[in-house]
Amino acid sequence: MTLSDLTGALQGRADERLAEIVARLEGFLASDADLSFQVAAFLEGVPVLDAWGGPHLGEHSATVPYSVTKNTLGLSVGLLVERGELDLDETVAHYWPEFAAKGKGSVTVRQLLSHQAGLPQAAPALTADELLDHHAAAERLAASWPFWYPGSAFGYHALTIGNLGDELVYRVTGRTLHEFYEQEIRAPHGVDFYLGLPASEEERLIPLLPMVRPVSDATVPSSSALGPVVFASRSGAIDLAGDPVSWRYGHPGTSGTGTARGLARLFAAAVTGVDGAAPFLSADTVSQVGQQQIRGYDEVLHQHDRAHAIVFQKPSQQLAFGGPRAFGHDGAMGALACVDPDTGLAFAWTIARGPWPGGADPRAVALARDLGRILS
Amino acid sequence: MTLSDLTGALQGRADERLAEIVARLEGFLASDADLSFQVAAFLEGVPVLDAWGGPHLGEHSATVPYSVTKNTLGLSVGLLVERGELDLDETVAHYWPEFAAKGKGSVTVRQLLSHQAGLPQAAPALTADELLDHHAAAERLAASWPFWYPGSAFGYHALTIGNLGDELVYRVTGRTLHEFYEQEIRAPHGVDFYLGLPASEEERLIPLLPMVRPVSDATVPSSSALGPVVFASRSGAIDLAGDPVSWRYGHPGTSGTGTARGLARLFAAAVTGVDGAAPFLSADTVSQVGQQQIRGYDEVLHQHDRAHAIVFQKPSQQLAFGGPRAFGHDGAMGALACVDPDTGLAFAWTIARGPWPGGADPRAVALARDLGRILS
Amino acid sequence: MTLSDLTGALQGRADERLAEIVARLEGFLASDADLSFQVAAFLEGVPVLDAWGGPHLGEHSATVPYSVTKNTLGLSVGLLVERGELDLDETVAHYWPEFAAKGKGSVTVRQLLSHQAGLPQAAPALTADELLDHHAAAERLAASWPFWYPGSAFGYHALTIGNLGDELVYRVTGRTLHEFYEQEIRAPHGVDFYLGLPASEEERLIPLLPMVRPVSDATVPSSSALGPVVFASRSGAIDLAGDPVSWRYGHPGTSGTGTARGLARLFAAAVTGVDGAAPFLSADTVSQVGQQQIRGYDEVLHQHDRAHAIVFQKPSQQLAFGGPRAFGHDGAMGALACVDPDTGLAFAWTIARGPWPGGADPRAVALARDLGRILS
Repeated sequence: MTLSDLTGALQGRADERLAEIVARLEGFLASDADLSFQVAAFLEGVPVLDAWGGPHLGEHSATVPYSVTKNTLGLSVGLLVERGELDLDETVAHYWPEFAAKGKGSVTVRQLLSHQAGLPQAAPALTADELLDHHAAAERLAASWPFWYPGSAFGYHALTIGNLGDELVYRVTGRTLHEFYEQEIRAPHGVDFYLGLPASEEERLIPLLPMVRPVSDATVPSSSALGPVVFASRSGAIDLAGDPVSWRYGHPGTSGTGTARGLARLFAAAVTGVDGAAPFLSADTVSQVGQQQIRGYDEVLHQHDRAHAIVFQKPSQQLAFGGPRAFGHDGAMGALACVDPDTGLAFAWTIARGPWPGGADPRAVALARDLGRILS
Repeated sequence: MTLSDLTGALQGRADERLAEIVARLEGFLASDADLSFQVAAFLEGVPVLDAWGGPHLGEHSATVPYSVTKNTLGLSVGLLVERGELDLDETVAHYWPEFAAKGKGSVTVRQLLSHQAGLPQAAPALTADELLDHHAAAERLAASWPFWYPGSAFGYHALTIGNLGDELVYRVTGRTLHEFYEQEIRAPHGVDFYLGLPASEEERLIPLLPMVRPVSDATVPSSSALGPVVFASRSGAIDLAGDPVSWRYGHPGTSGTGTARGLARLFAAAVTGVDGAAPFLSADTVSQVGQQQIRGYDEVLHQHDRAHAIVFQKPSQQLAFGGPRAFGHDGAMGALACVDPDTGLAFAWTIARGPWPGGADPRAVALARDLGRILS
Repeated sequence: MTLSDLTGALQGRADERLAEIVARLEGFLASDADLSFQVAAFLEGVPVLDAWGGPHLGEHSATVPYSVTKNTLGLSVGLLVERGELDLDETVAHYWPEFAAKGKGSVTVRQLLSHQAGLPQAAPALTADELLDHHAAAERLAASWPFWYPGSAFGYHALTIGNLGDELVYRVTGRTLHEFYEQEIRAPHGVDFYLGLPASEEERLIPLLPMVRPVSDATVPSSSALGPVVFASRSGAIDLAGDPVSWRYGHPGTSGTGTARGLARLFAAAVTGVDGAAPFLSADTVSQVGQQQIRGYDEVLHQHDRAHAIVFQKPSQQLAFGGPRAFGHDGAMGALACVDPDTGLAFAWTIARGPWPGGADPRAVALARDLGRILS
């Protein structure tokens, strides 16, 4: 343990090799009195950065980092692959017969989990009640025609990948994704990141603050015909990230809760092991679930350089968080958690207020990339 | 029936909710004394707009709307799918054994009908005589190597999709596409749109007028290596849309004939039913043939945001005629016919003289989209 | 034989129809005293241009034209397809069982040879010793996880396609690619282009001269996450094109050696036949190996309009060397060799010093295209 205690506006601990990074983080705080973040990194399973700063977040504050939550699904799927319980090249219908309806009989697990199945929404649109249910949204989606011929395209299943993944885990294990993740990953590895925040932890929850400036039209991604349809449910009766009903439930696409330290530890436990233990995923499984499945035009976001592994995002020009084997997931409003198997770096960043709708804070992306470079 | 008679330069009838649309159409006529169009729309099978204006077209004028004709092929294929006579996932060679030649044995009907088979032209180029024959062009294409590995790309089969579709229908039904469409769709549903204009109707035919201004280089789409090869036959001895030999034959890719009213009724009869009858396609069939099969770079047109369903076009940024389940087809010089199953709107627009080589009149695209919004 | 002897700065012979081309070539030499090139073309197997100029290259000078070398692999594969010894739709593992490791059991020969297998590099990076060995690099690659799910994307296997192709030919024939190419193609057809320059020819070898001006950042293609990883081995201990160890070995991806005359004759012998003999590939085989397999975004080069046939490049907007059935391969620093079956033109261009990192000299691309136009 070579971490030194930090003594400025930035609190926490950092490896001695990270003076440049600490200075950069201090600079962020100095230039924006409102900025509040947590940042954490493990190198080969050993903490190298564990820091926080700003008026709104402390060491133990828990936030709802939107789609960063999807990493819990990706790693749960990885553990099922590791154990031989789930085969990515099997059809979804093999595990979930009802899914074969409406031309989906040959859709593979691989396609479903890389946003290729054409189910970013049902018709009519899913309600918040359905989305916050272990089976209701999944049942509706299984009975739907895909918006595109499965495998011919991909588009961000912003919310539904959580429901589809939850049901798939249930069909394989008899447990909800929430139960499986809690029992097999979160609790055994001491990960401070929850799918469904327990009442005992609620006092730590810091709801995401509203943005200071309204987002200009120029920064809102232009939309395909599908965009408004897919995101319709977001503007429904409840906020699927911010509402207590949602984070108490823990929607696996958007409303997990916890700290940057917890998210970085989650990836370190999976890929490098922590506390001297072996990683819970073998190198072969990491290669499988972290392998790029699709790159290019996203049908929902109408963006042209998106790339996905199994559930996870892959680095792209706009999201260059690591080398070609890195994977992870960002969240609307700026958070990011990712790992690079080639450098052994697990990284996470959470914030209290964010101006980057649609993806990671560019500062976080640069930190992940530069930490990997400095430490390897 | 809530249609009111129109009393200005625009003639016909319109639903009372469409005052804004009627004013817009009147504005088109006021600002361009030469402009002549027909426009028609059905909502859930009931006419809501049936209008025409300008010096060159009357209520019963028939035009040759180029590729809008392809909708007759798409809906005929739909009817064969509906009846269980054609399986989109079967190989083409299953129905048409000679098609297996030259590396095409595994090409599916789905790929053939969504411009993925690599057969936009034969080598040497097809002649007008071959293209205006129920079997000659198809035979040449079946004996050809595809320009790309089937399924690896797509490119607009501007003319050949008509010949390939005609032969496929013939192999399935023993009838030409022209016979099948006439007997099973056009006549029973009273559709004023023909594949092969009968002599008795010829007096209604208004040949497309030449453009007023030459098209500038800037508006002509740049071409791939394939473009000039594919369109070579267009500049042959006869004009495949404008020549009487062609519209008397009714090339299913380019030289059908009729009115906007007929085209809108065609889609309404298929998707919503007309005159209180059930639609001739079930909701499941509509979802199948209207499902996006491919999106992205078109090898022939060298354009980057093209999208196709089974035969039909899907909405794209440049052709945003409806929501994500809408489908239809535009034509060179500006015509458009389309339907949106989510709003129940069937729409068509034809013109007498058009300045939009390569696709729909932007005014028509906006009308289709706005009618759907206003009426739903 | 209608060739006339050239009498100016440009030496050699040219068909009388090529006065415009000869003047253009003379212009190149007049405007740049340092420029040195060889250029050669056959029409239907008959030489129509065989010329050279500049201070650094003579009639018999041999250069190392980088990736132009890949044409030897493409045509060797073609000959195996022609003879029925290799099936492009078979799995690689059918011929090479060890290749099935790490999720590659279903990768086809077609995918492997069109840069779709995801193996542009191994981890850790291949050494020069491994790359210049008939089996060592191939063995490492066979034991690797692909960087992307095979078939979901493509990226230039700049070096490894040579090693993978060499091993595949060995598994099919029991001979290395070098032996197969030498015995079945180079020697029988009198082709002055070698995979492994014999000692007796070394006096002809002109090492590629360094560029006169450093390449500006603006002209270096931007890189994906994969780019630096793939090209890492290039900056290793030896220069894989320029080092004698490399061109004595003859890496099939980058360090073949010979003349433009040899490269043009190679394509003419394959596609049209030379000296009155039949071509060594039938028209069907030419259609198969020259057929476009993939087009679009290249994962390694981070370029958006790349296209490949089996090993070969296809024309694209940036590399418009022929019609839709043309194929060939360029090389870093500017060389190009290609053929267009529709015009019967085989073409090659080599240079002594080049400012076009990453692809063909634009002058060479225009020459290939214009020769085809003038002579057909």
